Amino acid sequence: MELTSFASIVKDYKTIFFDAYGVLKNHKGLIPGILNTFRFLNDHNIDYYVITNDASRGPRELAQSYQDSGLTQITKDKIISSGMLARDYLKMKVQSGTVAFLGTKESVHYIETLGLKTISIADLNLDDAHEISALVFLDDEGYDWSRDINKAVNLLRTVNIPTIVSNTDRYYPITGHEVAIATGGIANMVEDIVRKHFIRFGKPDAQMFIFAYEHSVQRGGTSDKRDILMVGDTLSTDIIGGNKFGLDTVLVLSGNTLPGQVELKINIEGIIPTYVCESAVIM
Amino acid sequence: MELTSFASIVKDYKTIFFDAYGVLKNHKGLIPGILNTFRFLNDHNIDYYVITNDASRGPRELAQSYQDSGLTQITKDKIISSGMLARDYLKMKVQSGTVAFLGTKESVHYIETLGLKTISIADLNLDDAHEISALVFLDDEGYDWSRDINKAVNLLRTVNIPTIVSNTDRYYPITGHEVAIATGGIANMVEDIVRKHFIRFGKPDAQMFIFAYEHSVQRGGTSDKRDILMVGDTLSTDIIGGNKFGLDTVLVLSGNTLPGQVELKINIEGIIPTYVCESAVIM
Amino acid sequence: MELTSFASIVKDYKTIFFDAYGVLKNHKGLIPGILNTFRFLNDHNIDYYVITNDASRGPRELAQSYQDSGLTQITKDKIISSGMLARDYLKMKVQSGTVAFLGTKESVHYIETLGLKTISIADLNLDDAHEISALVFLDDEGYDWSRDINKAVNLLRTVNIPTIVSNTDRYYPITGHEVAIATGGIANMVEDIVRKHFIRFGKPDAQMFIFAYEHSVQRGGTSDKRDILMVGDTLSTDIIGGNKFGLDTVLVLSGNTLPGQVELKINIEGIIPTYVCESAVIM
Amino acid sequence: MELTSFASIVKDYKTIFFDAYGVLKNHKGLIPGILNTFRFLNDHNIDYYVITNDASRGPRELAQSYQDSGLTQITKDKIISSGMLARDYLKMKVQSGTVAFLGTKESVHYIETLGLKTISIADLNLDDAHEISALVFLDDEGYDWSRDINKAVNLLRTVNIPTIVSNTDRYYPITGHEVAIATGGIANMVEDIVRKHFIRFGKPDAQMFIFAYEHSVQRGGTSDKRDILMVGDTLSTDIIGGNKFGLDTVLVLSGNTLPGQVELKINIEGIIPTYVCESAVIM
Repeated sequence: MELTSFASIVKDYKTIFFDAYGVLKNHKGLIPGILNTFRFLNDHNIDYYVITNDASRGPRELAQSYQDSGLTQITKDKIISSGMLARDYLKMKVQSGTVAFLGTKESVHYIETLGLKTISIADLNLDDAHEISALVFLDDEGYDWSRDINKAVNLLRTVNIPTIVSNTDRYYPITGHEVAIATGGIANMVEDIVRKHFIRFGKPDAQMFIFAYEHSVQRGGTSDKRDILMVGDTLSTDIIGGNKFGLDTVLVLSGNTLPGQVELKINIEGIIPTYVCESAVIM
Repeated sequence: MELTSFASIVKDYKTIFFDAYGVLKNHKGLIPGILNTFRFLNDHNIDYYVITNDASRGPRELAQSYQDSGLTQITKDKIISSGMLARDYLKMKVQSGTVAFLGTKESVHYIETLGLKTISIADLNLDDAHEISALVFLDDEGYDWSRDINKAVNLLRTVNIPTIVSNTDRYYPITGHEVAIATGGIANMVEDIVRKHFIRFGKPDAQMFIFAYEHSVQRGGTSDKRDILMVGDTLSTDIIGGNKFGLDTVLVLSGNTLPGQVELKINIEGIIPTYVCESAVIM
Repeated sequence: MELTSFASIVKDYKTIFFDAYGVLKNHKGLIPGILNTFRFLNDHNIDYYVITNDASRGPRELAQSYQDSGLTQITKDKIISSGMLARDYLKMKVQSGTVAFLGTKESVHYIETLGLKTISIADLNLDDAHEISALVFLDDEGYDWSRDINKAVNLLRTVNIPTIVSNTDRYYPITGHEVAIATGGIANMVEDIVRKHFIRFGKPDAQMFIFAYEHSVQRGGTSDKRDILMVGDTLSTDIIGGNKFGLDTVLVLSGNTLPGQVELKINIEGIIPTYVCESAVIM
Repeated sequence: MELTSFASIVKDYKTIFFDAYGVLKNHKGLIPGILNTFRFLNDHNIDYYVITNDASRGPRELAQSYQDSGLTQITKDKIISSGMLARDYLKMKVQSGTVAFLGTKESVHYIETLGLKTISIADLNLDDAHEISALVFLDDEGYDWSRDINKAVNLLRTVNIPTIVSNTDRYYPITGHEVAIATGGIANMVEDIVRKHFIRFGKPDAQMFIFAYEHSVQRGGTSDKRDILMVGDTLSTDIIGGNKFGLDTVLVLSGNTLPGQVELKINIEGIIPTYVCESAVIM
């Protein structure tokens, strides 16, 4: 597969959907030169959104971290996270009772803005299980894994409640070579044990792309999918999800997919991006 | 779980999404009394759509079969099928080459209206594999399973092309007690052998519900999901899909889920409908 | 399915293989009356073995816990555990380096009798990853889940070593209604994340039954499988494993399978025991 | 990973287990030079067996095909096939009724030597389903896939009987670049639809290796596993199965695993052969 220059592609589109990790930033911070890309997009009146499997914080806090790094163009409105979908689900489907969660106080804050009562799995007493109306996997931090993941298993054996996984990623990078198990990986283990059907939000699920699409159209963006480009570093989430939604897709080699593997991976997985670029950096 | 009367529920909603098989019809034809339901809906100005995992024919032909049975309210515009999503995908993502398909002439007709060149897997010569730009699973009929499913496997080993499954159902009922393997079941076998990622359309995937929602809103229907009700006979497709999209859901006991099993199934699967009704019939 | 009296069955066999939990004991200790069963077996010259998915301790310590409860017939020689298979694997296949383990000091003691150097995942420094020649999942205790399961993931991303799961159970009962995630459940999560093939020991795998069979034959037991009976409380481990190995099987209703569910479960799972008995107790 | 000469390895062992396809033969017939290997083994008093996932014929017929190709050393006694395990299962566990099978007349012949009544799925009338005591997947030929695989599905929905898969392979090579779906692939589809637990025989399952081991020991072969070597071309069957059974293993590059991929595959799959050799040919 031939490498294409990102600049030559991007100007044929009106809206760009960016994956976050591996595309805009990595474990060291912003990917060097990515600020130029956003200058270029602004100069060419091309709109953009960040579409990210992340429920560890609300969109405001996610945007803040970009701004703190100098990418001031990423405001709250530019963020589409899987946590936003999980919140929407709870808003529509859970009106009463208490929502138990696995995550930090920061992760649940955005859900509490719905007016829902919440309780950390760490604070839950199983004797009060009947008061719980839903269980939400938000983050891999904020609780004691051994004590509290076991508590989540027993909660789901005691009461039959909807269980929401607000980030389907199984792991995430923490340094150049180390990863950490993500909330999606923990949720998979619990589901494998209790054998119930959880409700999952996050790429590659179409709902993420539709949410982003509608969010963009409402803010005046193009409604023609042919004018939208999805940029990601992972075939099995960003690219297959974008393809299925009908978008053109760019695989960048600045994250999960390494330059030497790209052809082999595309062939083995059968997931075919429209373009392959070294990175999303425009010099 | 308590049974509720369908009539008492339905009048609180503005739009009803109906699953087809097990809700409106079964192997003997229309479910007795279902015509009354549609009279009731018309009388009360409640809108409705049929949301069905079916790619064996286009929406016009699917509607015709309802009309031939006497359910004249089901016109082409009232049908949302997984085949329509598959067609939309091909329209956006496959502009050239020939689309190979597993299915009948009737199943591919709706795709050919895009102007795409198509070839039945039965007529495909593997020496011409490089001319094929996509493979689509449409129906379980129209080809010789032994010769042609093997041909599909070898096609996907020869060329790296998107593969579309236009109906995720693994089987469908043909008489009161017999079933037949559906195109989704065949596609699962092929994917298990070639180990590539196929693109699937059909409930419970959110895309089906969003497609129906947008289709309905464009025709003047309500845009408030709280006013839409999903009615189905299968927890793992209709109900979990409707729930995830944020709709209220009704499980009816006229199809896949039998009255004696309903409580057990809901508890084992962890999929919780808003209501359970004997059927969608309003007397 | 008709219930049969255990006493009437058991005297037609020369050797009985018993599952442990749910058959001989439960969360309260020995199942009341089970001592009579072993008196009966001794009186009738029927041999017996306990076949258990357990690697938390060696066979001597497992036997000791039966003896402490008053079941003095269960000596070290009567125990066949999945941990014994894992130890045998290490003996044959790992001759050098250090074996890292997830488990307690008690769980690794039996492996250390091989003369192998071991290190708890809790004490492992990833900078020394290249010294590790195998990773073994022994128990769900003895380490900090959050810190150390993540360490196991990163170990397997750093070095390509055989990974052994010495107990395939996903969870185990701790009280009448609560369970705890077992080492097999944790191993499944790690395998799902690193996507490597682990080597698993435990029922229903045939190797457990063959190991027990050979162990029994060596001690003078019958070599005719028709004279051996497997007794268990779980269709998907004890019964399918015993069936596949060619043994007659008894499902008892004193553990995982409740009296009201037995017919349904046998039909849904398609796993058919030769007999169903209330329990293994002989009054 | 370094390549080792097969000759230098093989003389340190007393018994060699060979995979068939990709090691001894390929689609063109015997692998050139393989006759020399067997001359070498005979000259050095090294014993050998062929361990193959094949139930399309009995061991006598499988051996005959080697002899017809000139490999006269492969007699009936040298063959260990997954079909032999399936036959043993039926011998122990199915004493009455009729065994329905998917396969050719040749494939069922070996089972009929048990004295069991058999019926091809092609000849089965579902009205007689209650006379069927087991279903066996033997071969991918001998029946009409569309009509008869559907019949197998409905048989298993009508009666609750053990279902035996006598070859776990999902596909097999038919020419240098084409494959055909094998009986294991078909069985997977049926199991995915009826959701019952099938009983499977074939590598990598330990039972294959134990069967071969006991067969060999009974004929005077070594009982020390350290003196047995498993030779195969597939990591996920031959090598992981041999490893788990405690044997030293050789991956050869004359079949499924290509020279350019070997290091990558070993790292991705986490299955580590003791040696890698170009082929099993000794010049």
